[in-house]
Amino acid sequence: MPGVATSHLRRVSALLALALSLATGLSGLLVVPGTAQGTGQVRHYYIQAEKVDWTLVPTGYYDDKLGREVPAGVTRYPAIVLRGYEDPDFKRPLPRAPWMGILGPIIEARVGDKVVVHFRNGDFAYGRPHSLHVHGLSYRMAHDGGWMPHPAPAQPGTAVPPGGEHTYEWEAGPDSAGTWFYHDHSVDAADNVRRGMLGGVIVRGADERPADREYVLLFSNFLRTVTRLRRDFFTINGVAFMGGLPGLGARVGERVRFRLIGMGDEFHTFHLHGHRWTLNGQIVDNVPVAPASTATFEFVEDAPGLWMLHCHVLDHAETGMMQHYAVTER
Amino acid sequence: MPGVATSHLRRVSALLALALSLATGLSGLLVVPGTAQGTGQVRHYYIQAEKVDWTLVPTGYYDDKLGREVPAGVTRYPAIVLRGYEDPDFKRPLPRAPWMGILGPIIEARVGDKVVVHFRNGDFAYGRPHSLHVHGLSYRMAHDGGWMPHPAPAQPGTAVPPGGEHTYEWEAGPDSAGTWFYHDHSVDAADNVRRGMLGGVIVRGADERPADREYVLLFSNFLRTVTRLRRDFFTINGVAFMGGLPGLGARVGERVRFRLIGMGDEFHTFHLHGHRWTLNGQIVDNVPVAPASTATFEFVEDAPGLWMLHCHVLDHAETGMMQHYAVTER
Amino acid sequence: MPGVATSHLRRVSALLALALSLATGLSGLLVVPGTAQGTGQVRHYYIQAEKVDWTLVPTGYYDDKLGREVPAGVTRYPAIVLRGYEDPDFKRPLPRAPWMGILGPIIEARVGDKVVVHFRNGDFAYGRPHSLHVHGLSYRMAHDGGWMPHPAPAQPGTAVPPGGEHTYEWEAGPDSAGTWFYHDHSVDAADNVRRGMLGGVIVRGADERPADREYVLLFSNFLRTVTRLRRDFFTINGVAFMGGLPGLGARVGERVRFRLIGMGDEFHTFHLHGHRWTLNGQIVDNVPVAPASTATFEFVEDAPGLWMLHCHVLDHAETGMMQHYAVTER
Repeated sequence: MPGVATSHLRRVSALLALALSLATGLSGLLVVPGTAQGTGQVRHYYIQAEKVDWTLVPTGYYDDKLGREVPAGVTRYPAIVLRGYEDPDFKRPLPRAPWMGILGPIIEARVGDKVVVHFRNGDFAYGRPHSLHVHGLSYRMAHDGGWMPHPAPAQPGTAVPPGGEHTYEWEAGPDSAGTWFYHDHSVDAADNVRRGMLGGVIVRGADERPADREYVLLFSNFLRTVTRLRRDFFTINGVAFMGGLPGLGARVGERVRFRLIGMGDEFHTFHLHGHRWTLNGQIVDNVPVAPASTATFEFVEDAPGLWMLHCHVLDHAETGMMQHYAVTER
Repeated sequence: MPGVATSHLRRVSALLALALSLATGLSGLLVVPGTAQGTGQVRHYYIQAEKVDWTLVPTGYYDDKLGREVPAGVTRYPAIVLRGYEDPDFKRPLPRAPWMGILGPIIEARVGDKVVVHFRNGDFAYGRPHSLHVHGLSYRMAHDGGWMPHPAPAQPGTAVPPGGEHTYEWEAGPDSAGTWFYHDHSVDAADNVRRGMLGGVIVRGADERPADREYVLLFSNFLRTVTRLRRDFFTINGVAFMGGLPGLGARVGERVRFRLIGMGDEFHTFHLHGHRWTLNGQIVDNVPVAPASTATFEFVEDAPGLWMLHCHVLDHAETGMMQHYAVTER
Repeated sequence: MPGVATSHLRRVSALLALALSLATGLSGLLVVPGTAQGTGQVRHYYIQAEKVDWTLVPTGYYDDKLGREVPAGVTRYPAIVLRGYEDPDFKRPLPRAPWMGILGPIIEARVGDKVVVHFRNGDFAYGRPHSLHVHGLSYRMAHDGGWMPHPAPAQPGTAVPPGGEHTYEWEAGPDSAGTWFYHDHSVDAADNVRRGMLGGVIVRGADERPADREYVLLFSNFLRTVTRLRRDFFTINGVAFMGGLPGLGARVGERVRFRLIGMGDEFHTFHLHGHRWTLNGQIVDNVPVAPASTATFEFVEDAPGLWMLHCHVLDHAETGMMQHYAVTER
């Protein structure tokens, strides 16, 4: 039973993180600009591609193959992520909930809104061109962001050079309600996405109210060919192994909404202990998550405890695609 | 065309198995304790983890890679399975239908019932701790069965030592109707499940009547790293290659219900020749089965013949995820 | 940015292909025999298994692993495909749309019809037995086409020898409406399917009218163990890499219907840039495609441009499972 020695410390730390996030209102309470008023708005987002040294396993983990503990630092790699700012000069970062992990800022809109994303390529680490491509919203082809080797020349906004900027305009029409996401679609798009360039999108229906807690969870793999680490990792929001992604949870009586996003090279499932919910007319406690597909569901919290939330593909679960979900009494 | 020499013998054997199972009423007619009366019952199950020498390919098979027949015995490994008993002393085994294969006893309940499982860890072969975790039913955290490396100390019932016992209490609420399953979730849960520790759960709605035949089929893989055999196997109820899982079938005119369970490291599909049915409003003859997801559907049998039932992922089908389904005239 | 030098040529070629296909009416306008009149018909198809030298990447491609351009010819292998003929002597080939790629002829029927397929095994290249097995339609066991190693002797039509013929009779009952397919199911069925032996089936409901464009797209892999090429390929209709499958597209205002078929050894997804549609009550722009499952959906075209259509499993997309979808103004 590896890890027992440090487990008490971790428990305290996880519970503290939960308490903290509950206190600050960051856990599951989305704080995004321009979402307070009615419909038909233009919502501006300032999003930058930038390098961070990302740690895939912040708790460290016991590696069965190596037969020893691997400290957190050994799982660090130079990621390119998407980060949101309040201002057009990319100076004041948007607040981030701890559970968001590697995810870019959550773009939130209501049906009828227009989303304008001011994108800046701040990737001076790899020095690669980047772009943003969105799912679920409508746009003219000039705002697609998808780089194609041909026909030439490349469309504007499909290969923004380091230091360059581009503005994308996307419409949240009546057929855009739901959970979506945006990601790099430039040259070598697959590897850019694998390095971390993805964020969530929420488009609310006309009468849709936010739940008390809303979590956007990305199920994706990180290939060693991209990270240059010793092995692949299966992650939730870019984090592997239990305890590494704090802040997931609720109080009894709250309405909790999950918004799942699949990405990468594998199919996953989402299983939450102690809970069931309805999805597409079926009662389930496990939801398949295909790359680039999403699932949205909710329930009223009624099960106090410290639960496991994990992918149920066995080798994904045992190599770290597993986190805590903490429910406190009312 | 390997296997032709022995095929006649196999045919006779398969048909005999069908006839036998039809005669004994074990095929698709679930015999479980305490299910006859009304709702709101407490249903007790006595389930033991125990070692059996399990044969993955009871018919033997022709191995394309090796270029020769592989006899049944070469596919035998020391499995840990879940077996049901009628009594609290684990002396009188519950009857088992041949088609159940490696599956543990099928737990059957009605919405409103409470299920009490008296679990005994009889694994003195590997000498590992074990537990039971259920899907679809509700329970307090103390009955979850999911072992977590932290926080310490481990919850009760998450690591029952060899020779130890634990009682789990699960509730079949109104949001529990459907097909579910239970499995080991202790230390090294993934490998324990891969060794065979899984059984099905049926929760019937208030007005739901059993079909004339009900089959619970588990689609899962057996890794060589766990079995120590020369290769991986893809199985239905722990059995690979046609003819190895007798007793699947029906008579024309009977109502047949399939309850599929996915598990393991791969996604599968269920295809049945000569039949179509409705699932989630769609007419299909092929159903994807994700790890830890289930699917329930039924049809009235109208197609006499000896049909193929198989996973339609090509390399799963060709390496043995395929069985007979025999339909006799009324 | 590999491929830029030849990209202009490719663009011209792709647009010409589109223009050509629009002009000839072959793109998305299915031309099949016997579909004009009412219901309850008997529809005869003449389908032959035959060898063609199939090029998986007709555009050539830049291989990241090799670090150089790979010309089209290096991706050629001896395929066995299914080809349709107008006559019982297999002399006059049915017309084929360019987007059909490696697919066999599309069998089209209406609920209430009977489909009679006159099959000829013209595989003198490999000299293997072949058969046809259909999904979604009903048939007696003698018309199943699925070869089984036992019981012996093999059913008729499950192992038609080279030069041999067999007639299959399938019924399109009320529970057969939808998108289906037929494929080889003889000895070594998996490898025969992997070599290219698959075609689509459309069964229209009583009141269903064809859309202005209907595309049948097969998502499947081609294993190097079967093709004897240097690597695996992920393909749409047997073609990998953008520009290789011309003729997919529409004019603004047209109703477009996609009929997706999964096959092979992997799960895929279908993503189309710039579009969204409703499937099973959900708004989506990405559809999981499991082996042997199908999905049917449609939308009214409203987005002019040259869009990307691709599998969103990252390593499938980056190794070629990606094509153009061209939308011209009304």
